[in-house]
Amino acid sequence: MVPYARRIDNMAYTAEVVKNLFSTMGDPNIISFSGGAPAKETLPVDVIRSIANEVLTRDGRGTEALQYGPIMGTTDLRQAIITHLLAPKGIQCALENVMVVAGGLEGVNLICQVYIDPGDIILVESPTFVHAVEIFDMFEAKCIGVAMDENGMVPEDLEEKLHQYPAKMIYTIPTFQNPSGRTMSLERRRRVAELAAQYDVLVLEDDPYRDIRYSGEDLPPIKTFDTTGHVVIANSFSKIFSPGSRLGYVVGEAEVIAHLAEVKSATNSHTSMLPQILCAEFFNRGYYPEHHRMLCDLYRQRRDAMVSGIDKYFPAGTKHSFPEGGIFIWAELPGGLDATALLEEAVHDPEVAVAYIAGEGSFVSRDGQGKNCMRLSYGNTTPENIEKGLQRLGRLICSKLEHN
Amino acid sequence: MVPYARRIDNMAYTAEVVKNLFSTMGDPNIISFSGGAPAKETLPVDVIRSIANEVLTRDGRGTEALQYGPIMGTTDLRQAIITHLLAPKGIQCALENVMVVAGGLEGVNLICQVYIDPGDIILVESPTFVHAVEIFDMFEAKCIGVAMDENGMVPEDLEEKLHQYPAKMIYTIPTFQNPSGRTMSLERRRRVAELAAQYDVLVLEDDPYRDIRYSGEDLPPIKTFDTTGHVVIANSFSKIFSPGSRLGYVVGEAEVIAHLAEVKSATNSHTSMLPQILCAEFFNRGYYPEHHRMLCDLYRQRRDAMVSGIDKYFPAGTKHSFPEGGIFIWAELPGGLDATALLEEAVHDPEVAVAYIAGEGSFVSRDGQGKNCMRLSYGNTTPENIEKGLQRLGRLICSKLEHN
Repeated sequence: MVPYARRIDNMAYTAEVVKNLFSTMGDPNIISFSGGAPAKETLPVDVIRSIANEVLTRDGRGTEALQYGPIMGTTDLRQAIITHLLAPKGIQCALENVMVVAGGLEGVNLICQVYIDPGDIILVESPTFVHAVEIFDMFEAKCIGVAMDENGMVPEDLEEKLHQYPAKMIYTIPTFQNPSGRTMSLERRRRVAELAAQYDVLVLEDDPYRDIRYSGEDLPPIKTFDTTGHVVIANSFSKIFSPGSRLGYVVGEAEVIAHLAEVKSATNSHTSMLPQILCAEFFNRGYYPEHHRMLCDLYRQRRDAMVSGIDKYFPAGTKHSFPEGGIFIWAELPGGLDATALLEEAVHDPEVAVAYIAGEGSFVSRDGQGKNCMRLSYGNTTPENIEKGLQRLGRLICSKLEHN
Repeated sequence: MVPYARRIDNMAYTAEVVKNLFSTMGDPNIISFSGGAPAKETLPVDVIRSIANEVLTRDGRGTEALQYGPIMGTTDLRQAIITHLLAPKGIQCALENVMVVAGGLEGVNLICQVYIDPGDIILVESPTFVHAVEIFDMFEAKCIGVAMDENGMVPEDLEEKLHQYPAKMIYTIPTFQNPSGRTMSLERRRRVAELAAQYDVLVLEDDPYRDIRYSGEDLPPIKTFDTTGHVVIANSFSKIFSPGSRLGYVVGEAEVIAHLAEVKSATNSHTSMLPQILCAEFFNRGYYPEHHRMLCDLYRQRRDAMVSGIDKYFPAGTKHSFPEGGIFIWAELPGGLDATALLEEAVHDPEVAVAYIAGEGSFVSRDGQGKNCMRLSYGNTTPENIEKGLQRLGRLICSKLEHN
């Protein structure tokens, strides 16, 4: 048979990790801390129906919604991004700096199309987002991990790696990171921008969780410290509006965005029109501020339920992050416990029936690092089920510890 | 600055061609035969509003529409594709053989992700679809043209090229081809499938126009002659439902589709949910048959208007295809006329103000082949404007011929 492209082999490991992520989804008997989905209660179904009903007319935006649209995205959505999402964070830019894409991951994909050749080196956080690594594997890049601590990527290790490797790109989720829930400090944000300019390396700032902050102080994007055009932002509407709409955006220098438009055209012509129109109307009709408050209240409750559940039910010696936003907590188990091995039992033992993400797959070193770690998402699980699930999972973990 | 990937240089030529395509779009003073857009009158705005209003509820499909969805596409849309679009053409397949993608071009992109390494050879029709070449250029493939005549790709030339080059893929639009409007004969369809098996080459059968046939006899897809799994179909809902929805599908062997799901995941996770739900409901509620009749009637009228306009206003010696479906006519001008040079004047002279696609960009040889050719689309222009535009364009062409 016709041989596959080399990248298919190169994706085998992460494709398997990703496939396992999806295997327990949708099973109603399992309490899932594994997915990255937002709470279904937050999806603005009624508002979207009412907007759709109003705009889907021939005199309104019905024809526009169903006909071919602009490669860069609709002007009103790009303007809404500038006004409602970028300006408040201190990012001043023009329409030519903003492109709409089909979700945050498509932004990462297209930035790779513009920059990454096979063999190029990408520096990633340890741990990092497995779906991004799946993309980097597809582009046959070589990922090198950079150490993290509670304040995000460690700049000393980043500089060492920049010195050691001729890197093309630094990939970071600076705020409420996936999978760790950690946030890069202000000082480190400034430092990453400086190092990028100094070593002439691109920073891909993937920041889909930052708008869901419910405690602590807001931090400016790395992009605000970029004076040389080395930082490109990929962001998403998945957590603040709707993931099923597949909407995201990229922010960068006009020349970079023009090349992004070329590779977007060669990927899928343009982003689906109806979701763009509905999203722009959602922001421009003023629904976002109240929706945003509701999101933050809901996720704060769930974070608190998860933190107190871990403290209550997990064994002494368990460490965990304390996210001030987003939907993920990172837990490190004590006593040499193996979260990868444990997962099988956690999912299939009907007395437990809890799913999470084993931490190991989030490290590009693939040498067993993170074996004792788990990513616990509280995004789409009610506080009651968070408590119940952690109790059952904690019981299983404690029983393993006794046998160790 | 950080260097771009090699593919960006490789795309420079087609990116420029594509950019020029879009430059006159949306100018209300220009009669455009250039775009490939369907008639705005055919877009089912009212039906879509009514379906959206009904399904976008919490008890209905509202949550599903806004939440993350399956990588492969929704089950009901995949089943609708099998039932309403594949079975009637003699293609029997299961859900595992069908994946929903964000438009026909994304299907082409993802098939390249699975198969194409830099330097791989793709055999394409002469002329071929410039947006597909843009994708092949992005994948750093080498395109080789295969001769066409009124019955599509010439099998003798195809075999010669297969003999001469270690090709990985044959790319064809067998029905109402873009840009030529030509259709591959039954015998040649069978022959292409045979040659693909014999030379172990993939056939990418891109077939977005086939469902809009309004005269002549329906021909089975090349896929129906495929006994060895060498044919993969990429198709689109853009011409039969709505291009702005960005919906298409790929049909192939289960293993190929499984790899497609991996690269889809690394491209944009999954296709936007609301358009998928609306499209599936459109087919499953039985709106398609009447819609399809309306499409065919409308485009037949426009084809007839264009054929008679060319015969009436273009100089003697002009050759043109006579499409039995689709939305394109290919015209070859006599007397050494240069359609590329003429385009500038056709667009900018206010007495003419007509846009078309110069044929030259559709040939991968890039050696001046097709210089006297133009693609004329009658998709989104009324019969009155088709007549008016051809009269003005014909007058310009005739004046040039006199000066030659």
